[in-house]
Amino acid sequence: MTVSPLAPSSFPDLPKIAGINLATAASGTRYRGRDDLLLITLAPNSRVAGVFTKSDTAAAPVCWSRTIAKTGKALAIITNAGNANAFTGSLGHKAVHDMATGLAATLKCNANAIMIASTGVIGEPLDTAALTPYLGKLVENQTASWQSAANAILTTDTFAKGAYATCFIEGKKITLCGIAKGSGMIAPNMATMLGYIATDAALPASVLEYCLHEASDESFNAITVDSDTSTNDSVFLMASGSAANRPLTDPLDPLLNGFRTALGAVTRNLATQIVRDGEGATKIITIDVTGANSKKAARQIGLAIANSPLVKTAIAGEDANWGRIVMAIGKLGIGISTNDIGIDIGGHAVARAGMRVPDYDETPIANHMTGQEIDLRVTVGAGFGTARVWTCDLTHGYISINANYRS
Amino acid sequence: MTVSPLAPSSFPDLPKIAGINLATAASGTRYRGRDDLLLITLAPNSRVAGVFTKSDTAAAPVCWSRTIAKTGKALAIITNAGNANAFTGSLGHKAVHDMATGLAATLKCNANAIMIASTGVIGEPLDTAALTPYLGKLVENQTASWQSAANAILTTDTFAKGAYATCFIEGKKITLCGIAKGSGMIAPNMATMLGYIATDAALPASVLEYCLHEASDESFNAITVDSDTSTNDSVFLMASGSAANRPLTDPLDPLLNGFRTALGAVTRNLATQIVRDGEGATKIITIDVTGANSKKAARQIGLAIANSPLVKTAIAGEDANWGRIVMAIGKLGIGISTNDIGIDIGGHAVARAGMRVPDYDETPIANHMTGQEIDLRVTVGAGFGTARVWTCDLTHGYISINANYRS
Repeated sequence: MTVSPLAPSSFPDLPKIAGINLATAASGTRYRGRDDLLLITLAPNSRVAGVFTKSDTAAAPVCWSRTIAKTGKALAIITNAGNANAFTGSLGHKAVHDMATGLAATLKCNANAIMIASTGVIGEPLDTAALTPYLGKLVENQTASWQSAANAILTTDTFAKGAYATCFIEGKKITLCGIAKGSGMIAPNMATMLGYIATDAALPASVLEYCLHEASDESFNAITVDSDTSTNDSVFLMASGSAANRPLTDPLDPLLNGFRTALGAVTRNLATQIVRDGEGATKIITIDVTGANSKKAARQIGLAIANSPLVKTAIAGEDANWGRIVMAIGKLGIGISTNDIGIDIGGHAVARAGMRVPDYDETPIANHMTGQEIDLRVTVGAGFGTARVWTCDLTHGYISINANYRS
Repeated sequence: MTVSPLAPSSFPDLPKIAGINLATAASGTRYRGRDDLLLITLAPNSRVAGVFTKSDTAAAPVCWSRTIAKTGKALAIITNAGNANAFTGSLGHKAVHDMATGLAATLKCNANAIMIASTGVIGEPLDTAALTPYLGKLVENQTASWQSAANAILTTDTFAKGAYATCFIEGKKITLCGIAKGSGMIAPNMATMLGYIATDAALPASVLEYCLHEASDESFNAITVDSDTSTNDSVFLMASGSAANRPLTDPLDPLLNGFRTALGAVTRNLATQIVRDGEGATKIITIDVTGANSKKAARQIGLAIANSPLVKTAIAGEDANWGRIVMAIGKLGIGISTNDIGIDIGGHAVARAGMRVPDYDETPIANHMTGQEIDLRVTVGAGFGTARVWTCDLTHGYISINANYRS
């Protein structure tokens, strides 16, 4: 598969996080010549948090891991790529149980310390018998790099996604490393994406959970490729505590500002990489909405624009078809006044107060549309609600990928 | 432009409705070699009703016609194709006023008896000076056929859409003729579509309005091509009264059952023709949802499936990728239980009680997927809510059309 033209030039150099180990393996169950299993193990006193798909048809591994994440403690996360173990009924729950108990036996821990993530085809029973033989090998050789880990979880992705940031908590240096996968079935509330962020910070699970929700809301929940939400989305935040900082207990403690900023940077970086790997994407589109009555309304407006097939195809065609942006704003029916709408593309004024600007010149805008990074700014009134969302264009590539791939 | 492979073999033979006349003209403002103006005039005692887009950014002609329709009376509807007169601010309202007063002067009536519809590009001021010179010609020669009328209102459509039905009201034969346009920016709540249904029935405006809303809800509001909702959608029901039936005043009067059935048949026929002309469509998809807690929930589920790019591309690829149907049901997050979900494709059981059926055989389903008419049936529980929605597949053709057309 051709690498997305929007891909970063290389995978970043992610450092090891003390207390968190990685292992990968190739089960050969669906893919040839690549790893499709990822084991992450955590030092005994690690703390974890998770955010998961809000889909009513959440997959069996999501149901399992959601419960474990609530305890704030885990010792391992096992991930398989190629089969989502979704809509597999009692067989799916049995498969999850088999994986967890199998790995727990190998790790000599309780099955309730094992989290599970799956990605791939929906509706086909997961053949755990084909995967469990690799658990011993994974546990024995936990020396994989973040890049290998990022590669092992891919499905239709065209490049591995990683990001990191550092910060300080009361003078102790903290590192955060993240990897993610996802390129289709991407919409807010955790679409087909898996994310794993590891840090050496020492923080209680309640703080991790707050910070992960906060960061996800402005990153993974602010992107959309195709408005479709997956059954399997999961993002995990793991903290080994090896940085030995004082474990602050209030997520809003100013001493944690640096950590929250760093986590936000990592999740935003990973989220926009997912958009950059949007199926068939040739352009990444950043949409800023201001002047809405609430943050929620601003997000809705941004997503209405981001999910509009007509807007996305126009951008694919490098057409500054801003009338379709007007349409997308209006179609929500949430009481926007046409006369309050203003639009800028690439920093150039297109519309003000519900009309095209009098001296409208499409030349600089048409030029902006030929680039890979498209900026849309929309104002809808005098409210204080703002939002930023990211999406990609809708191209022939999306059709080709999805008319042929069984996901 | 190639005619949609789903188009009917020919335009139906629509009879003239006594008291309702048609005229078309070519202004040459946007299109070459075709008509782009349609005038419909109504006998003095005609009654009218309308349903209009719910978009917050409704176009100037919609704002105007909505007001007139509420009075239940009109003498003419003038339509232009090529410019939507949407998001045109005060210039747009002036253009509507100029068209109405110009036509009223020619027809020697009040401007408040003129309804207006526009379709085409959003955001460009409508140059009425280029259109008003044709009003005299239109009024002088009102002998156009329904087929000519249907052709004059097209934009990206690949075929003209007409339908008719007859019924009896207390022994008087009633005829209904309808035409419509629309193939993109189609979603419930009146997407870029215009519809005109004329009848010789004698019925008060209140009855027409009830019946039109009822019929639209199960037809124009139950179709989606791309989830995008237009700024200009309008459907008009015109009743000349020339059939001289007794004007019944209660829309639920059993004596009107035949009329309501006939109107439903015409609107459903037109609506499915719009789907058949969905931009790039190669397959029409009928989705039946049963077992939902309410009719509204059933409709939501049907539309979630119908609007899913992943479902639509899979069908374009003739892939019985039913896992994506599960995803689409789940993504609504309205509390469906996975274990209640059942799916049939082309009459063949795919899933029951949240799992693939044990003896699943994809052969007959794969065969069904190669056809032009795809049937999906989804059950989500034991509720009494049912809905039927129609959509089309999402193909390279949609991308090609919309990456190049300025709508």
